[in-house]
Amino acid sequence: MPETYWGKAREFLSKHNLDVGDIIELEKNGIQVKGIIMPTYSNNDDIIVLKLDNGYNIGISVSNIQNVKLIEKKRKEEKRREGAVSTTNSEVMIISTGGTIVSKIEYETGAVRPALTPDEIIEFMPEIKEIARIDAEILFSILSENMKPEYWIKIAEEAKKALDKGNKGVVIAHGTDTMAYTSAALSFSFRKMTGPIVLVGSQRSSDRPSSDSSMNLLTSILVAKNAPFGEVVVNMHGESSDTYTLVHRGVKVRKMHTSRRDAFQSINDLPLAKVHYIDKKIEILSDNYRSKESENTLDAKFDNRVFLLKYYPGLSPDMVEHLISSGIRGIIIEGTGLGHTSSDFYEVFKKASKDGVFIGMTSQCLFGRVNMNVYTTGRLLQEAGVVPLEDMLPETALVKLMWTLAHENDLDRIKEIMLTNLAGEINYIHHYEMFPRWYHDRIRLQ
Amino acid sequence: MPETYWGKAREFLSKHNLDVGDIIELEKNGIQVKGIIMPTYSNNDDIIVLKLDNGYNIGISVSNIQNVKLIEKKRKEEKRREGAVSTTNSEVMIISTGGTIVSKIEYETGAVRPALTPDEIIEFMPEIKEIARIDAEILFSILSENMKPEYWIKIAEEAKKALDKGNKGVVIAHGTDTMAYTSAALSFSFRKMTGPIVLVGSQRSSDRPSSDSSMNLLTSILVAKNAPFGEVVVNMHGESSDTYTLVHRGVKVRKMHTSRRDAFQSINDLPLAKVHYIDKKIEILSDNYRSKESENTLDAKFDNRVFLLKYYPGLSPDMVEHLISSGIRGIIIEGTGLGHTSSDFYEVFKKASKDGVFIGMTSQCLFGRVNMNVYTTGRLLQEAGVVPLEDMLPETALVKLMWTLAHENDLDRIKEIMLTNLAGEINYIHHYEMFPRWYHDRIRLQ
Repeated sequence: MPETYWGKAREFLSKHNLDVGDIIELEKNGIQVKGIIMPTYSNNDDIIVLKLDNGYNIGISVSNIQNVKLIEKKRKEEKRREGAVSTTNSEVMIISTGGTIVSKIEYETGAVRPALTPDEIIEFMPEIKEIARIDAEILFSILSENMKPEYWIKIAEEAKKALDKGNKGVVIAHGTDTMAYTSAALSFSFRKMTGPIVLVGSQRSSDRPSSDSSMNLLTSILVAKNAPFGEVVVNMHGESSDTYTLVHRGVKVRKMHTSRRDAFQSINDLPLAKVHYIDKKIEILSDNYRSKESENTLDAKFDNRVFLLKYYPGLSPDMVEHLISSGIRGIIIEGTGLGHTSSDFYEVFKKASKDGVFIGMTSQCLFGRVNMNVYTTGRLLQEAGVVPLEDMLPETALVKLMWTLAHENDLDRIKEIMLTNLAGEINYIHHYEMFPRWYHDRIRLQ
Repeated sequence: MPETYWGKAREFLSKHNLDVGDIIELEKNGIQVKGIIMPTYSNNDDIIVLKLDNGYNIGISVSNIQNVKLIEKKRKEEKRREGAVSTTNSEVMIISTGGTIVSKIEYETGAVRPALTPDEIIEFMPEIKEIARIDAEILFSILSENMKPEYWIKIAEEAKKALDKGNKGVVIAHGTDTMAYTSAALSFSFRKMTGPIVLVGSQRSSDRPSSDSSMNLLTSILVAKNAPFGEVVVNMHGESSDTYTLVHRGVKVRKMHTSRRDAFQSINDLPLAKVHYIDKKIEILSDNYRSKESENTLDAKFDNRVFLLKYYPGLSPDMVEHLISSGIRGIIIEGTGLGHTSSDFYEVFKKASKDGVFIGMTSQCLFGRVNMNVYTTGRLLQEAGVVPLEDMLPETALVKLMWTLAHENDLDRIKEIMLTNLAGEINYIHHYEMFPRWYHDRIRLQ
């Protein structure tokens, strides 16, 4: 589907089975135009953008277009693996899925668009050659907000192939928006791994002076090659300046800021390691990591008939009943405090639970552990079938539920799996230092 | 309704129009029993608990009960204002709504239950007498997870009465679970205030040695009497030890930990003040506060036909369409990153928006500001009618939308109000220090 298009233009392209990248010829008002279909950034929903042979783009309204003719379909196969730096005997495979780490400014409009060929990686950072022999491929070119469970499976399979082929580790370039969801999905899918799978992204696009692309990508290659982890991890800036990155466990990490370079932080856990940029040194911060195994076993299936329900005062039980009636098999509640909703929901949850719907409780506080034994509300919710999910992040719990539901039908078995620590998503010991420190002093403006 | 009961026992009580606190007499298997109906903590849904004259509780199955007779209805009026410390010429009014700051352990079961009379406040903290002349009343005794928009209105009206009567400020004792929702609701409801309204709670119940009740309540009374704010604020522990509390703006605060005493923190803003416990001193941290006015104007109305939609990969547009079809008038999206959802949602949002449903965008990152002009996705979502809501917290945006929808029908006016800074919910200037500092070093266990 022509991703950036919508409305009439999208209908037009779909009807003619055309997509971005296709070369077409069309006639309008007696004039013949030939060009490549470009992504659109137009405010009008009836404009398609063509790049002409002379290099210029034009926008054409789709109304009254005659004689659309496909000259050449976008060459997908060529794009894939073209320019791979080293196709044999690589140590680290870079799988690109899109996102800002591989973005460029669209020169026509000033908008950011994803782009990366393996050539660009080396052009970007010649030092990589001294760190590892890399191979690279473009799996997708999508913005991470468009990520879906079926893409998680493709990424997992591609990563497994790369590890099976003998790469020491894999780097997955990914948009930051949903990176933590993908890292959780891969964490549950890989039961055994011969090396680290490192998700990496960038909060500033690579053409901007303040970009974190180079440092994040380079340190990720280092981690993929040298770190002792048999885990799925996220490697991103540790602080705003270019000092170190942090390697976070894939199920305990969250994007905590819309734009800062150090937006990714571990919640209810410590980062596994710090990677010093200048020294190119990995400093292990926690011994509590999973070691590499001698083989890769992958079990990637997801059932998305789930819902993430964030509780708030004023939410009506009717609406939740209406939601459940749409055929979902599981709900993760982001409850208040230690894991609560209003007592008005007992009956709805009890009924859903009796009908085989799994209901798990996490907290919208994000930090800390749910405990549904302290207050009456919590105990009554448990009696209604709601399962407290320890200190799991709501997003991680949701992805785990999608994975579990694809494997089990029996509610008791589902509960059992949800409470089994599969990939470090439950941390039984919290340290005081896992809660960050807020600034509590006066800020004086200069 | 008998709040802690459910299932058969709840049905039984409802049928006979009975509630916790009522004195009843009943006959079962030929035996007469008389007692007060107690809250239940039973695992069975058919047991009601009676406190007998001899002080003991018994649990009675509701099946085969004969001749239920109400002896005396729970005395509500007596409870209210009984034991008020000073009914004339008070400086600070304490309005109790329930929650842990006023909890006691239920001796029969070990569970925590809310309880407070004005007498208990002074018994608890005789020092209060030196700070302010207080008055106190119990408005509700509910757990804050059971808070609802209609209660927000009652609290607002009661607080206005107290300010109108000449109190310098008001303290509202509130459960911590939904305190930030209530503080937002009061912030939008009060257009002008003659003094601070201070919400306060406790993360540990008052009978426990580590309780934060005394310090939080005492400093709140201090703030209510002496702080220069004409704002609704939350006053809670600033750090784990008993050093200082923080006064947070009611629309910029969030419970960030399920159990820590310093769980409440300002997001995308600085706390307004720090209150030093030992010195009993208020230190103003920000000049950006609203001053007291010469009158109190209250406009408390809420329409809860809204939904807080947290976006995640795998969410289906069909489900969102199904949700919207339930008759909601507005949605606050917790999008990814700078304010995104998958492009699959353009059509659903566009249709809803055309049908008059307001759709606002916030970020699940919580920290930072949404910016829907950087990436194509954001711009297309805006074209579909989605309104970026700056750096507003999702929960605050939801409460503001409930308030706005109760006042306006016209979508353009609704948008205008949502983007007008009514109570400091939008902060146009972010400082580097507003993002907390995570701990990035190795923790060594002793």
